[in-house]
Formats: sequence, structure tokens, C-alpha cells
Amino acid sequence: MTEAQQSRQSIRAGEWTGPTVYKVPGFVQCNLAVLPRENAYDFLLYCQRNPRPCPLIDVTDAGDPEPKRAAPGADLRTDLPRYASYRQGAREEDATEIRALWKADSVGFLIGSSLTFDEALRRAGVPLSREVWVLDTAIPTVPAGKFSSTLVVTMRWMTPAQAVTACQLTGRFPFNHGAPIHLGDPSAIGADLEHPLYGPPVEKIPEGVMPIFWACGVTPQKAALTTRPALMITHAPGHAFITDIRADGFCLP
Amino acid sequence: MTEAQQSRQSIRAGEWTGPTVYKVPGFVQCNLAVLPRENAYDFLLYCQRNPRPCPLIDVTDAGDPEPKRAAPGADLRTDLPRYASYRQGAREEDATEIRALWKADSVGFLIGSSLTFDEALRRAGVPLSREVWVLDTAIPTVPAGKFSSTLVVTMRWMTPAQAVTACQLTGRFPFNHGAPIHLGDPSAIGADLEHPLYGPPVEKIPEGVMPIFWACGVTPQKAALTTRPALMITHAPGHAFITDIRADGFCLP
Repeated sequence: MTEAQQSRQSIRAGEWTGPTVYKVPGFVQCNLAVLPRENAYDFLLYCQRNPRPCPLIDVTDAGDPEPKRAAPGADLRTDLPRYASYRQGAREEDATEIRALWKADSVGFLIGSSLTFDEALRRAGVPLSREVWVLDTAIPTVPAGKFSSTLVVTMRWMTPAQAVTACQLTGRFPFNHGAPIHLGDPSAIGADLEHPLYGPPVEKIPEGVMPIFWACGVTPQKAALTTRPALMITHAPGHAFITDIRADGFCLP
Repeated sequence: MTEAQQSRQSIRAGEWTGPTVYKVPGFVQCNLAVLPRENAYDFLLYCQRNPRPCPLIDVTDAGDPEPKRAAPGADLRTDLPRYASYRQGAREEDATEIRALWKADSVGFLIGSSLTFDEALRRAGVPLSREVWVLDTAIPTVPAGKFSSTLVVTMRWMTPAQAVTACQLTGRFPFNHGAPIHLGDPSAIGADLEHPLYGPPVEKIPEGVMPIFWACGVTPQKAALTTRPALMITHAPGHAFITDIRADGFCLP
């Protein structure tokens, strides 16, 4: 049994309910979105049109909670440590399993997470940030049906030499957001460091480092929530799905 | 006006009706599939599940023939030099435009073509094959709805040293089929060189070269045709759609 399979077993048994950040290195982690079949075509199209924020790793058949490509035998209803759910766009209480919420027309979408390349950066000698900020920008994404959103990004900061390494290295992970979408001045992309979506407000970027921005998987969540679907279920922030896919073997699934 | 835009203008004007193979180097070329909206979700899902044979570059809104991401202002009904169409899976006569066949529920899918990396290989000093073979294999793809097919591949042969270059170089083009799916013995993937789908039969691989196999965009056509859709329109073989996307700038659109 691999570490990924062991971790999912602990999560399913309720022994692990905490975050997956920096856990089980070497395996691709995914964000989850569960939508009813009636919203699935537009959401799939939205992801296709915006592959940098929405790199799709797996999409389940309607009603079937098994992500057959990413983790055969896994169950999306029980194998994430913590779920967030939204009715008509309003967040409900978090849950540690969603068996009762999963319907015959539920479609599960797994979207590659940048947690995958954090480990690759660390291994390449780029120190992990204490913080990874999540910020909204003024960059529009390409709409599909009712789905539209500005691009949400993650921000890390590092030295220019580390940034060069990061550009090359993360470009090797196109299914985990790929290369950065911007380097340097946050205002050039309309990002407001004093008002991040997650992470502490930043008044001034420290000397000697520059901010680097990657497309973020919060984007498709934001696009979906603006349509106020009857029910949308996602992973809780930082509590991702651990797949069987080896990050280093992974160019295309 | 770029060379890509000029080429589409000539094609639309009916001045260019020949193949696009090795033409307009530097711009991503795409295979076309047009299906009715009722088949579009399953086809989109099939492509998502099989990104190596089916790397989607653009999907149009139903009824709208403009591929807004790949080539703003272009028209998929007129801007390919030659079209093949299939009714209930049976091929009709080819056409040089499809205005009368395009319906209010037509959805156009543009799928990255390996013609893009042929140019990159040439520039890297790997001589272009006189032939590119297309072969069926015994490798199953992941089904979606009614869509399923074995994996169809292209084959090129080259020296082992060139093969090493080709593996590295084509891996940089994940949206044009990416790295090879196999090197060496054709029988290991069930490919029969004496009975290629396109290209002359091969009795014996010449001394000093080895065959290299890439996933091929004929795969989704084959998957779609087995469902016998009322009408499916594709590019005629070798007559692809020339996008505005620069091949060398292209990791993710």
C-alpha cells in the first residue's frame, strides 16, 4: 500500500481530519468541486477554457464517487479530511464526509493543486514560504455559460534567483497550474496585498525578494459560486484530495 | 497581419485548398471536430479523460463558429482548406467550406496537432521523416458516455540519439500530444506496421533507427464515429486549422 492509499484510509476512517498541506509529498493533491449534472457541461467548458487556474485531473461519471483515473478505489464522499458546502452560494457548516449530500446526479471534479509543486520547489532548494497568500486580481477569465470570474492567484515571495528556478520548475507541472502568470509588481495585475482573500495583510514586500503569482484553484470555485448552484461541495481550504498520481512522473495523466 | 492570419484569409478566399502540413511554421495547428450539442458533454469528458490523444485547445459556444481563444475573428466554417464530414459514421464527399452544414447547436472542438512539434524537431536538428505513419494500437482509452476507442498513434523513426532529443523536446508541448507514449517494439502496444491506417505498409524497420510513437488526434475522431452521430464534421487529413497561438510560447493557452 502506498503512502497515498494509507493516507486516504486514515481519512476515511476518521483518524485524520486535519489539513493535507505539506503532507504525503510526492503525490499529486487535488481541489474538489462537486456540482449537479445540469451545471457540469458549463463547468467542464469553463475549466477547458481556463486551464491555468482549472487544470482538470479527473471528472467522475454522474452519481459515481470513484475517481477512476486519479485514485482507483477511492471515494470522493469520504476520502477528504474536511469538506465545505454551499447552498445557493452560501456556505454551510463544514463536514468530514458527504455521503448524505452526494446525489445520483452529482459530478465530482478534481483540479490539480499547487501543493504539488511546493514540494518540488523545496527539493530544488527554494525554501517554502511561511505563508502562501491567495489574492483576487483584475484579470478576467474566459467565461463559459453562466460561469465567469476574475483570476484568483496564489502569491509566494522569493529571491530573483529562486524565481528563475521556480519559473522553470513549475512549468514542468502544467496540471498543477504550471508556470507563474506574473512576477513583480502586484498592481500590474490588480492584486491588493493589503486585502488578500487568505493570508495576513502585507504592507510592504521585504527587501531582496519579489512576489511571484500563480493561477489558483479558488478561481473555479468563485466562478461556480456566482451562479448560486442549488448545492456545491468543495474541499475545505488546505484539506485536499490525495491522489495516487506521482508528482514527478506526471506530465499528463 | 501575422502569417497565420494571412493563411486563414487565403483559405477563406478559396485560394488555398491544399494541405497545411509543414506550412506556416511557428503557429499551433489544430484538428477539428464539430458535433451537435447533445454529444458535446460526453465528447468534452472523453477529451478531458484522454489528454494525450485529445489535447483541447478551444471549444466554441454552441452555434458560434468563432474560436475566440485560439484565433479571434476566425470562422471554423470557412477557414480550413478542406473538411471531411460523416453522417451516421459514413464519410460524405469532402468540402472546402461548411456554412450550410453548421447548425445553431454545432459545437466546434479544436485539438492540438503534432504538426506543431514536427517543426520544433526540425529546428533541433532531428530530420523530418519522409513519412508519418498512423497506426491503431491495443491500448484502450478511458471511455466517457458512449465514446470509447483504442489509442491511435503516429509513428516516426529516428536514431536513438534523436529519440532522446525528441522525448525531451516534445514533452514541452503537452497541448500537442506531448512526449511519446512508446519507444521501440511496435508489438508491445499492439501496433501492426504491415497494416497502418495511413502511410505505406512497413515490412522491416531500417537498421540504425527506432520507431517512436505519439498519441494521435485521430483517436477522438474514431471514438466519436463509433457512436454514429447524426453529423460529425472534421478537418480532412493533413488539412488542419492554423491558430494564432505561437508554438514556442505555448505551454498552456
